[in-house]
Order: sequence, then structure tokens, then C-alpha cells
Amino acid sequence: MFKSFKGLPDLPYAVAPVEQHNLEKQALGEKYQSDILDLIQALIRKPSITPKDEGCSQLLEQRLGAIGFQTEYFNKNQVTNLWAKRGQSKGAPAVVFSGHTDVVPPGQNAHWHTGPFEPTIKDGMIYGRGASDMKGSLAAMIVAAEHFIAQYPEHRGSIGFMFTSDEEGDAVDGTKHIVHTLKQRREGIDFAIVGEPTTDKNLGDSIRIGRRGSINGKITIKGKQGHVGYPEQLINPIHNSSKLIHKLATKRWDMPSRYFPSTSFQLVKVHSESGAMNVTPATLEMVFNFRYSPRNSFEKIKSYVEKKAQKYGLEAQFEWEHEASPYLTRRGKLRKTVQKVIQQESQIKTKLTTGGGISDGRYIKQLATQVIELGPCNKTIHQANECVSVSELNRLCHMYYRLLEELLVKVVDKN
Amino acid sequence: MFKSFKGLPDLPYAVAPVEQHNLEKQALGEKYQSDILDLIQALIRKPSITPKDEGCSQLLEQRLGAIGFQTEYFNKNQVTNLWAKRGQSKGAPAVVFSGHTDVVPPGQNAHWHTGPFEPTIKDGMIYGRGASDMKGSLAAMIVAAEHFIAQYPEHRGSIGFMFTSDEEGDAVDGTKHIVHTLKQRREGIDFAIVGEPTTDKNLGDSIRIGRRGSINGKITIKGKQGHVGYPEQLINPIHNSSKLIHKLATKRWDMPSRYFPSTSFQLVKVHSESGAMNVTPATLEMVFNFRYSPRNSFEKIKSYVEKKAQKYGLEAQFEWEHEASPYLTRRGKLRKTVQKVIQQESQIKTKLTTGGGISDGRYIKQLATQVIELGPCNKTIHQANECVSVSELNRLCHMYYRLLEELLVKVVDKN
Repeated sequence: MFKSFKGLPDLPYAVAPVEQHNLEKQALGEKYQSDILDLIQALIRKPSITPKDEGCSQLLEQRLGAIGFQTEYFNKNQVTNLWAKRGQSKGAPAVVFSGHTDVVPPGQNAHWHTGPFEPTIKDGMIYGRGASDMKGSLAAMIVAAEHFIAQYPEHRGSIGFMFTSDEEGDAVDGTKHIVHTLKQRREGIDFAIVGEPTTDKNLGDSIRIGRRGSINGKITIKGKQGHVGYPEQLINPIHNSSKLIHKLATKRWDMPSRYFPSTSFQLVKVHSESGAMNVTPATLEMVFNFRYSPRNSFEKIKSYVEKKAQKYGLEAQFEWEHEASPYLTRRGKLRKTVQKVIQQESQIKTKLTTGGGISDGRYIKQLATQVIELGPCNKTIHQANECVSVSELNRLCHMYYRLLEELLVKVVDKN
Repeated sequence: MFKSFKGLPDLPYAVAPVEQHNLEKQALGEKYQSDILDLIQALIRKPSITPKDEGCSQLLEQRLGAIGFQTEYFNKNQVTNLWAKRGQSKGAPAVVFSGHTDVVPPGQNAHWHTGPFEPTIKDGMIYGRGASDMKGSLAAMIVAAEHFIAQYPEHRGSIGFMFTSDEEGDAVDGTKHIVHTLKQRREGIDFAIVGEPTTDKNLGDSIRIGRRGSINGKITIKGKQGHVGYPEQLINPIHNSSKLIHKLATKRWDMPSRYFPSTSFQLVKVHSESGAMNVTPATLEMVFNFRYSPRNSFEKIKSYVEKKAQKYGLEAQFEWEHEASPYLTRRGKLRKTVQKVIQQESQIKTKLTTGGGISDGRYIKQLATQVIELGPCNKTIHQANECVSVSELNRLCHMYYRLLEELLVKVVDKN
């Protein structure tokens, strides 16, 4: 347990020093388990519904401060942002872990078997909102760093942590702001590891080496209201928009590339209603989202949609929000090292993917040369009875530990 | 004024006997105007918002009773239905006037310059809810009958009136029920004249010789909700329904015939919404109406829509309401006589049309050989500041009078 770590000379981890590469699962469990469980349970107990932090960062700050990290808050508006750093990156790699303390709302409590903010362990799983997204990863990162620094107090380079309470929400005052602040300081990052839950089934079977971009849009189409008995006197916005909807829904926006699927378009809302059976509506509103690959762009997509609406003779108003640009981490030291560690620890070949939602990786990539996302199974994220496997967290912790070893202990170049 | 008609020997109309065919407008005004104005104002003062009658029928019953009509109420549920008859139709035509005492709600009073139930005469127009739809016609019919019977107390055949307070609403307990009751009695109708406002600009420029049928429908399309980031795992009901909507909106359902436009389809509502920008909806609901010509049928339309949805692979649930069958009055004595009277009185050739909404004509046609709809200008119906021209009502009253003369005084056969 690391709660009494600060200032105590005989550290529990020191009793059982790490044997690299060949630790049995059982041994791993014994090694990290109680530390991880203590921390994840303490984090789940804090109902940090986005953008609230509820003291999560303070807890993480204490743990990192105790092992020699310098910590700073870059809070903005209602968002808590913690930046912690240990070591000097001059001439040696700067490795940064990134995570978020906020969680999505629990939804209706009725669907939870146990309280969403009362961590419960059952059959090897720990239940609670944020267990897999991503308080489990936070616990694994911190415990990995604690063990690593105990083992290698004089490691090369630097280790950084960036935590925000604004990832699940608007995500504009969080990691984006941390990155902005670090940029102004000319603080560079070589390798960034984001703790988002990327695993499909077996830990590490899938990692993110990038993410698609995201665009939100709303189109309001104006018609001319009228009585159904006089179709020649009215313009029905539902009829008129159907061609555009069909076109956008069936269009192939671009070809899939090696790591990115084709750009996809999804309507999340359509609404038009007159309130009477014999009267047609005056307007139609449609709301949609694009997930786009680096082969496309916000400008190209926006222009295409607006031109198509014009071509179909629609009187339309557009609202656009460019939510996220895509990013991609190409072949390099970090990708290679993560692949190698997963191969060693899980005996599987990881899939390099860019699927799923957006993540803060897009902001970090503006600062970091390479960004990889690696975390536990994402099967229950954002759902009732969210959970994560205790043994999976132990193994994830060890993977993070091993990454630090590979990146900061062995001699590596930055690419 | 006909309020004191009953039992009084010296009747005002007897002072100025009708000169057939050559009455000047001015003379007409003098002849009917005060009677019509008294009655329409009394009717407008009764706030008979559908299905309420508010004593309108009682007023009409008194007027008809006073000139020798036998009256009966065929009330059903909350609906007031009045049936009045004078004379015998054995071997001679039965002529029936049809109308409704109910009105649509006034809407927001703020849009009315004067109270919707406070009849106001200004610049030759009378304002109030129901003025043109169709208390003006009711007044014109009654006053025409009063004058006609005063002039021809021993007329051939019979005159009937059917009034209901359920035309603007569901229209299931009103004229439908009267017709049903008369059918059971084997009471036949030769010529029916419905007072619906059919005039575009000049009185009689357009009459209805039929109406399209009407079908209401609702389709609920089931999808599979999912995260926009995983399009391969979801089924988007908005996307999937767009092809069906486009197909139904652009299809030519049938060719227009001499009196009917093509069948028309109008969506009046479409709604599908997930509540989140990154989640697609589970279902889509669309609500629509068909106005269909006698070249089509409820069964054909229903079958087409359901088969098309199936062909497009939609998981759909259907709800159907066959609101009204179409009807058509073919060439015959009534049509010819109405055309002739309009030509004589308005010096215009009337257009034979089947446009607009549905009317009670569809029920009456089940009983009557021929049904024609003739009434005042429909420009302001169902709107704020609904109004009708006083001189138009005078001329309409004379047209109704002339129709009775043509059908019941001159020797006519029933075709």
C-alpha cells in the first residue's frame, strides 16, 4: 500500500523486487494488486461527473508528490487540470501519461446492481462508474510509476502526468488547455501514453495509434406550410430533405486507408412536425456527426454538404462545429515498444487501430511526437454496471511499468 | 324577419313577391339581407366549437318547424344531429341541404380584431368564427327555404335538412350517423346540396362534385442504437427510412382523371432522436396522409407502402386509418341545374372540382344519387378574422332558392 509511502524508508515494493519479463500473473497480482485496488476504489468513491473532479486530482497529486514529482494545476473555468513531472528530458526522452478523472453520469441508478460510486469487487471484477473509463488506468499508471521510481530512482529522461476533469464533456478546458500551456513553455513530449480503454477482449489486443476527426452539424430546412389537400401550394421540408439524407447516408466519403476506415456520417436527430394530420410542417431540423479520416477534411465535408443542399434546391441554414481533428502516430519507437511489451506480457500481437470515439490524444499529438492509447477492456464503458477485471489492471500496471523501463532505462533514441 | 313567422298571416316576403331570374343584386339585398344577417349573427354568437352545438340546432329547428318541417334529433355521444323534412318524396324528388353547426377553435384571440364569437359587420363583410365555414351557408339555406315555402307552399317532392355538430372534428358521430339512421328507414335522397365554402373568388366560380379519399398512416421504423464511432455495429433508422420517404414523396400514384388530381402523399411528421451527439437513435416515427382519387384505393395504397418498406429491408410497424373514401357525382340533373343557376345568377361558368379537404359529402353520397357542394368564398376559413361578404350570402341564398324552384317547381325527372 502506497498511502504511507511518503518518507518511509522500507517500502513494501522494495521487499519483492521486480523480476523483469518473466513475472507470472499470480506474482503480478500479489505485487500490484492491493495498491491498485486501494487507489481505484478511492477514485470511484469520488462522484466526479464531468467536469467535476471531486478531489481525484488531489489524491493523484499526493501520490505523485510523494515520489518526487513536481505538480501544478492548470485549472480553467470549472475544470481541474493537473500537470506533474519528474526528471529532466534534456537529451533523453520525455514520457507522459495522460488520463481523465471525470466520468459520464451514471444514468438511472435502478439499472445498477450496486451504487455507481460504491466500488464493489465481485468474481474478480471491480464495479463502479469510471472503473474502466478510466479510473482503473489512472490507478495502474500511478502504481506503475511508484514501482518504477522505487526501482530506478535515477532513471533517464522525465516522466510526466497530465490529468483533466474535462474529457467526457466539452473537452475544451481540459487537456487542450494543458497542452496549450506546455506549448507556451516550450515543454516537449516525446512519448505519450493515454489510458483510454482500448482493449476488445484480451489486454492489449487492440491499441489506438490515432483517432478519426469529428464534425457536428445541424441543418434547418425551410418549407412552406400548407394543407395536405392543396399539395401544389405547399413545400414539404420532409419530402425535400429525403434526397439529401439518402445521398449523405449512402455516399462513400473516401476510401479506407491502412489505419483509418472511411469517413462515416450519422444522423442523430431528425425532426419535423406540424401538429396536425392535415397540415404539413414549416421546417425540418436534422442533426448529424461525421467521423472523418485524415484523407478528408472539415472544409471539404462542409463544402460538399452545403453544395449538395443547394443543388437539391433546399432553402437551408447550416450550423457547424469542428469538434476534433484526426491524428495518427506513425511507425516509431513508441509504437514498436508498445507492440513488443504487449507481445511479451500478453503473448498476443496487438492490433493498431484508430476506431471508437474521439479522445484527448488529438490534443496531445500537437505537442508529442508519438501518442499511443492503451488501456483495459472497453466493453462496459458508459453503461450501467461498468466494471474492470482486477487481474487485467494488474497486468496493465505491469505493462506501463515495462514501458517506462523500455523507454527510460534502456538506451533508446527518440524515434 | 322570419322570427315572428309562425302563425302570422301577413308575411314580410309576401309583400314583395319574388320575380324570378331577373332580380337585381340590390333588390336581392333588400329581399334576404336582414333575415340572413339576423340568423348568421345569432349563430356566430353561439360558441359551437366542435363537437359542441351550443343551441345552434335548436335555433334552426325553430325556424324550420315554423314553416312546416318535421324535425328530429339523431344525437350520438356528444354530437347534436338534426334532421328536418317537409313534404313527400313519393314520385317526386327529395332535395336535402346539409350543413354543420360546429366550428374550428378560434385560435389565439390576440389575432382577431374583434371577438371571434361577437359577429361584427364592417365594409360589407361579417366577421366571426364560422362566418364562411359554414354558418353563413346555414343562414342562406334556411332563409331560402323560408322564402321558397312562402312562395310555393304546395311544392312537389320534399325538402330535407341535415345538420350536425361533428364535421370539423372526428366526423364519426355526425352526418355519418344521420345517413346511417336514414338508410335504416329506407329514406332516399335524390339531390343533396352541401353548404361547404367552395367559392374561390366569385360566388359559384367553383363547386365540388366530389372529394378525394383520405388515409392517415404512421410507420415506426426500428433501428439498432449505437455509437457514431462504430457505424458497423448500428442500424440508423433515419438513414434507412430516407429511401422510403424519397420514394413515397416522388412517386406518381396514379394519373389525374377528368375531375380528380393524382393521389397525393404528404408527411406531416418525422421524428427520430437519440438525445446525444455521438449516439444514433433506436427508432424513427413518420406520420403521413394520403388524399386519393377513385383511381386508387385504401387497400392498394396500404399494400404498396408496406411492400416497399419490406423491399427496402426496414423493420417497420404500421398503423392505418381509412379516414374517408372518395366520392364523385357524375353528370346528371343536379350538376346541370347547379351549373345553370350559377350561370344565370353570377354570369360565370362554374368549375367542377374535387379539391380541398374532405367533407361530409362522402357520407351523404352513400344515400343520395347526386351530391353537390356549393357555398361562399373559402379564403378565410379556419383563420383568424374569418369573414364572409354580406352580398355574397344574399346571392347564395337566392341560388339555393332558385335550385329549389328548378328541382321542385318545374317538372323534372330524377336524373
